Amino acid sequence: MTSERRERRVGLWLIGARGSIATCVAYGLAGLRTDLLDPIGLITACEPFHSLDLVGWDQLVIGGHDVCRRDLTHSAGELVKSGILRQDLVSANTAEASRFEARIRPGILDGPDVGFADMDPKSAELGSLAPREQVAAITRDFEEFRAQENLDRVIVINLSSTEVFQREKEAWQSLPEFENALDREENQPASILYAYAALRAGCPHVNFTPNVGASIPALAELAEEVGLPHCGNDGKTGETLVKTALAPMFRARALRVLSWQGYNMLGNRDGAVLSDPGHCESKLANKDQALRSILDDDEMHTHVGIDFVPSLEDWKTAWDYVHFEGFLGVKMSLQFTWSGSDSALAAPLILDLARLTELAAARGEKGAMLHTAAFFKSPLGGGTNDFFAQFARLIDYAEAAGR
Amino acid sequence: MTSERRERRVGLWLIGARGSIATCVAYGLAGLRTDLLDPIGLITACEPFHSLDLVGWDQLVIGGHDVCRRDLTHSAGELVKSGILRQDLVSANTAEASRFEARIRPGILDGPDVGFADMDPKSAELGSLAPREQVAAITRDFEEFRAQENLDRVIVINLSSTEVFQREKEAWQSLPEFENALDREENQPASILYAYAALRAGCPHVNFTPNVGASIPALAELAEEVGLPHCGNDGKTGETLVKTALAPMFRARALRVLSWQGYNMLGNRDGAVLSDPGHCESKLANKDQALRSILDDDEMHTHVGIDFVPSLEDWKTAWDYVHFEGFLGVKMSLQFTWSGSDSALAAPLILDLARLTELAAARGEKGAMLHTAAFFKSPLGGGTNDFFAQFARLIDYAEAAGR
Amino acid sequence: MTSERRERRVGLWLIGARGSIATCVAYGLAGLRTDLLDPIGLITACEPFHSLDLVGWDQLVIGGHDVCRRDLTHSAGELVKSGILRQDLVSANTAEASRFEARIRPGILDGPDVGFADMDPKSAELGSLAPREQVAAITRDFEEFRAQENLDRVIVINLSSTEVFQREKEAWQSLPEFENALDREENQPASILYAYAALRAGCPHVNFTPNVGASIPALAELAEEVGLPHCGNDGKTGETLVKTALAPMFRARALRVLSWQGYNMLGNRDGAVLSDPGHCESKLANKDQALRSILDDDEMHTHVGIDFVPSLEDWKTAWDYVHFEGFLGVKMSLQFTWSGSDSALAAPLILDLARLTELAAARGEKGAMLHTAAFFKSPLGGGTNDFFAQFARLIDYAEAAGR
Amino acid sequence: MTSERRERRVGLWLIGARGSIATCVAYGLAGLRTDLLDPIGLITACEPFHSLDLVGWDQLVIGGHDVCRRDLTHSAGELVKSGILRQDLVSANTAEASRFEARIRPGILDGPDVGFADMDPKSAELGSLAPREQVAAITRDFEEFRAQENLDRVIVINLSSTEVFQREKEAWQSLPEFENALDREENQPASILYAYAALRAGCPHVNFTPNVGASIPALAELAEEVGLPHCGNDGKTGETLVKTALAPMFRARALRVLSWQGYNMLGNRDGAVLSDPGHCESKLANKDQALRSILDDDEMHTHVGIDFVPSLEDWKTAWDYVHFEGFLGVKMSLQFTWSGSDSALAAPLILDLARLTELAAARGEKGAMLHTAAFFKSPLGGGTNDFFAQFARLIDYAEAAGR
Repeated sequence: MTSERRERRVGLWLIGARGSIATCVAYGLAGLRTDLLDPIGLITACEPFHSLDLVGWDQLVIGGHDVCRRDLTHSAGELVKSGILRQDLVSANTAEASRFEARIRPGILDGPDVGFADMDPKSAELGSLAPREQVAAITRDFEEFRAQENLDRVIVINLSSTEVFQREKEAWQSLPEFENALDREENQPASILYAYAALRAGCPHVNFTPNVGASIPALAELAEEVGLPHCGNDGKTGETLVKTALAPMFRARALRVLSWQGYNMLGNRDGAVLSDPGHCESKLANKDQALRSILDDDEMHTHVGIDFVPSLEDWKTAWDYVHFEGFLGVKMSLQFTWSGSDSALAAPLILDLARLTELAAARGEKGAMLHTAAFFKSPLGGGTNDFFAQFARLIDYAEAAGR
Repeated sequence: MTSERRERRVGLWLIGARGSIATCVAYGLAGLRTDLLDPIGLITACEPFHSLDLVGWDQLVIGGHDVCRRDLTHSAGELVKSGILRQDLVSANTAEASRFEARIRPGILDGPDVGFADMDPKSAELGSLAPREQVAAITRDFEEFRAQENLDRVIVINLSSTEVFQREKEAWQSLPEFENALDREENQPASILYAYAALRAGCPHVNFTPNVGASIPALAELAEEVGLPHCGNDGKTGETLVKTALAPMFRARALRVLSWQGYNMLGNRDGAVLSDPGHCESKLANKDQALRSILDDDEMHTHVGIDFVPSLEDWKTAWDYVHFEGFLGVKMSLQFTWSGSDSALAAPLILDLARLTELAAARGEKGAMLHTAAFFKSPLGGGTNDFFAQFARLIDYAEAAGR
Repeated sequence: MTSERRERRVGLWLIGARGSIATCVAYGLAGLRTDLLDPIGLITACEPFHSLDLVGWDQLVIGGHDVCRRDLTHSAGELVKSGILRQDLVSANTAEASRFEARIRPGILDGPDVGFADMDPKSAELGSLAPREQVAAITRDFEEFRAQENLDRVIVINLSSTEVFQREKEAWQSLPEFENALDREENQPASILYAYAALRAGCPHVNFTPNVGASIPALAELAEEVGLPHCGNDGKTGETLVKTALAPMFRARALRVLSWQGYNMLGNRDGAVLSDPGHCESKLANKDQALRSILDDDEMHTHVGIDFVPSLEDWKTAWDYVHFEGFLGVKMSLQFTWSGSDSALAAPLILDLARLTELAAARGEKGAMLHTAAFFKSPLGGGTNDFFAQFARLIDYAEAAGR
Repeated sequence: MTSERRERRVGLWLIGARGSIATCVAYGLAGLRTDLLDPIGLITACEPFHSLDLVGWDQLVIGGHDVCRRDLTHSAGELVKSGILRQDLVSANTAEASRFEARIRPGILDGPDVGFADMDPKSAELGSLAPREQVAAITRDFEEFRAQENLDRVIVINLSSTEVFQREKEAWQSLPEFENALDREENQPASILYAYAALRAGCPHVNFTPNVGASIPALAELAEEVGLPHCGNDGKTGETLVKTALAPMFRARALRVLSWQGYNMLGNRDGAVLSDPGHCESKLANKDQALRSILDDDEMHTHVGIDFVPSLEDWKTAWDYVHFEGFLGVKMSLQFTWSGSDSALAAPLILDLARLTELAAARGEKGAMLHTAAFFKSPLGGGTNDFFAQFARLIDYAEAAGR
């Protein structure tokens, strides 16, 4: 890192603070600070990012919301058992983890969600308040965090579970309409309320989930109005990453993809939530559309499935079968099996996005961070899902920012 | 195609004219002319190439050398049986195939190669002549082809089997030294003699094989001297294509590849030749180095194997296992199985390269065609093996040429 | 074959006579008679079966029912294009195929099925008659076949598409109740009417489909009453075969299967029918239960999916992922990809079953042919689904029959 | 377990006592005694074995030889890091592990092996003594173990690394010739000396390695002479297990296997040793022959490869591709990927074999334990490698023994 790094203290407020990704972020950050961990999987630790004045690991403070009461030690224990977190890393950072846990506040339960085993009753209570009151409660938490930790800036990062799919509402189309709907006490998905509260509170927002969040026109308008950068949706961590790296190869070689079948299996809490069809709908749309934006062929057959397989725990395993036609009409195939820890793949992206969002805010950028498309299945602002085209854009941004 | 396409008549002289790739080129070209085939797998049929003044399918004439006497109908029959050539395409083009066959001349047998079942005794005879005499014989064939078919230009394309590996020779380092060696009757690999004869005869040269060909400094010098474009080596058709599309993804995400094991199986004549360790050595070097140029990690473990599995016939089947480390030190894996017809994958690349080489010659370009790197495992002129970086360079070239 | 083979002439009446399996049976039988084909995939061509007095290929005559009008040449052409039937085999047997086609009669359309592209309107008409009239029509076809071809015996083999799932009916519990229901004009699945008609007409019955057929108590009673052998249900051709061969390995080694996920993709007419959830239900039940009968573990997680992927045509491709626990609580995995032509796998089983059923009838056996369990996903008479235990039983039967 | 279990105290003397398998045996045994572990992967914990009077976990004492000085804590630490041994199991049994370690003595280094990093110099010294002196040294260790631990019986189990392949020697053909060779100071593989010493010292012998051990006629003669049971060679733990379970399926269905390619990758010490061609030769012979004994087809093409991939550590990953022909000459394929911990798969087999060997000895059986063929790649006494046929024999034995 460059010696002339700016003095600053930045808060990361994680929605879903007790989940596996947040747990990996917390212990990972601790490990990076103490050099117990190599910065593998972090692109901001590589050039051309590394030379930029990005926020340092020791300049970050984490806090967050959650709707369950499962303690962090429990989440960490599960991840150790699954072979994802190292026992020594957990043992060396119990104090650090306790400090993080002390900063976790009850989140707001999304309307259609019902009780589950370790639900925080305060979250259910908050979730049943009028929307304006929910926003006010969240905002108080952001502000207390900022004040107590003496932060220059707070970035709100949504890592929560997939919400039940909701059809687009009229009120989402413009900021005035949306604020009227809040006044009318019309229910909104929790992810939207979080995004609204964050932007109104002056916090840049990152939506790593497939939930609606700030993707609606009303909030795009708000981000411009308040002059804040934001990005999302739906982190591109595993099978979709591979898909969007391979599909451009078929296109470049003029090979015709006849069918692309993708089967995903996962066993963590995310998988349990997705085993409900209502919740799954939000997720599948993004996964399928990624492919279609690259291979522009109406006759192509695609399928994306997600199954809950509890024994896999955090290990996402996916099998994709690509049936394609080459010269002379010959049918050929490529199949791949991806086996990765979803949380260990997501956590470094969160840290990278936090740094890039802080940079964008410091540079006075506002609106959708188009250069972060490579991180998402359904990037705000649209554009190609071709991973390499997205990545080239990110490199261009970094090089321009470094000049 | 654009209406203002130049009048011209271009010969493609295929070394290995009785092999599976040449057979697919011959019937494929016939199918394209008669619209029996869609131009799948041909990038020059897509934009931005399509708008360039490329040679048309009906402006091409094919001929070639081979060292065996197996007739083309036999090669076609094997490909029909393997499900690669369509029976109707073969039946509709018997006359066309006969005309091609009538233009095939005995090639020169590479020194270390010994007799095989259907070897042409004239090839063995030619292969035992002094190098200068071999060159003279080949050159006569090129010239007769040009004269008899009234061609504006002949492009020589090497599609022959893998030669026995030979260590770099002193005489390869400069053109004068090389020509002295020819005078001294020092033996040279057949692929070098073909490339030398082609360039001396004014024919641009394409080396689709892993053989040395024009990759030596002496012939680079010759190409510059005679002002001709050339390209090679070793067509990137299958497993290496996938490798060089996936490896950049790991690098872009800062994921650390620990091991990359690649197992290739194939059953055609190419496979039979490669089952001999001497012949295989040339091939493996290119396949492994492609990966190392992208993932610059000295500790990475790699392996590339090629096994002859006769029952697969032309169906190349490869399994790759990528073991990688992500954040928190977690080890994950990606494995893929590629199953494709090697000849049907190669044939359209030959047609694309023929068109691009003709364009380069028409534009007066000389030396290594750096913009064709995406077609090769070991591109002349070096550079990255990252498929997408190579492809971007090709697109840039086409766009510039189109202006 | 033994020289003392009995003189006889046996008819195989195929329900679904224009489908891919029947087409493969027809051309396959022709090929076996003329020695154009090796008897691969036929267990009755191996010992200990080969020494039994089984009906010879030239003693068989085929005819059948179908509900569509697609001609056999069309089905054969599709199979040639998919690389399943050899062109030479088809060309050499056009006369034979025409004779078979001349013996195909309109079948009865199953009630819940609606019109499709090439439906035979006579089948829709027949399907709308009262059940007793449907039975009478079918029976007439059986009898005409027997008379015209001068057959000693007719075996009815159901190869039709999967029917819409129907819950068990009261009337299926006993023969008198069932016949009352027929009198009352209560609708019944077509597969049951075919089985009833066959047994009443003195024809042994083979149900290769997942449809109910003769599996109901009423028809078990009828088979005993009329003294005829019968077998079914649901041919074990591909993924389930592998499953029931691998699952016993885990059990024998006391390894604990945690999850077994099976994903099936197919593109033929069978796949199109199964892409409808109602039709699929019949199929999935059999596939899942096969596993549970072997691995007796209530906590095991299983999933079986079937997806329609048109580009695959007759090529069934399945991926199974087995997650298991070994000593020390270590989680491990086995995954396999099966890629086979469903019809080419089924056809020899049909010929084997025809011969075994004829043998059983000749030996005066009656009721469920328990020794044929190895051929079915859901064998009549139940018992283990362990393929090797089932196969051992078949060998024991053959050895006893050979004495 | 039955209440009338005999009082006894049985020693297991492990050759390769500091290796991963022995480490898993030691901690696994401790876990079984204290109910920290479920008896998964142990067939003797299931019926019909469970009812036999097998030696109990608390009646076993372990000791052994090794040629390296790496301490057991180090081996255990590596296995914890690889996710194979649970940290809690290791922590709970440090005292038990120390007691085991105190019973480990320097083994004899096999002649062709040269020094490696942590070699015990005493082993090199022992390995350079005259054969008779080596035998005497080993025998003293067996006897001290028996005396110090007050054991009723000692079973010697060879778990050492693969030795360099040696051609069959004249002197192996009979016991007198072999003993003459020892007198003549003719060098012998260490595995043979261990087996000889064991049997001469009255200890039943289990050879879990691919090394020659007691498989030579001379030692078969000795086992009969001294009246002791013994078994081997080469534990069937992973890929070969799957192979010998799947191959019978192809045979039973009369499907013709054209090619069976098997690629094994492993990263532990066993893999490092096998990366040397001399050591690998012993191993490959057994793996290939297993398949040929089941699928009796001279034209079948097979290949077995083993590659050392350090990053995999103890995780053996294998890919097999089976190309087969079905009815109508259609070529199809089955491929599988096996991913398992080699040591966790082997350890329970060691415990099962120890119990079965003790039972055989107690029952006065002598010579090759033919009923244990299911445990080995190359079972003593030969016979089929069909896993299910072998397993049925074991069940028959257990049922007979239980009567």
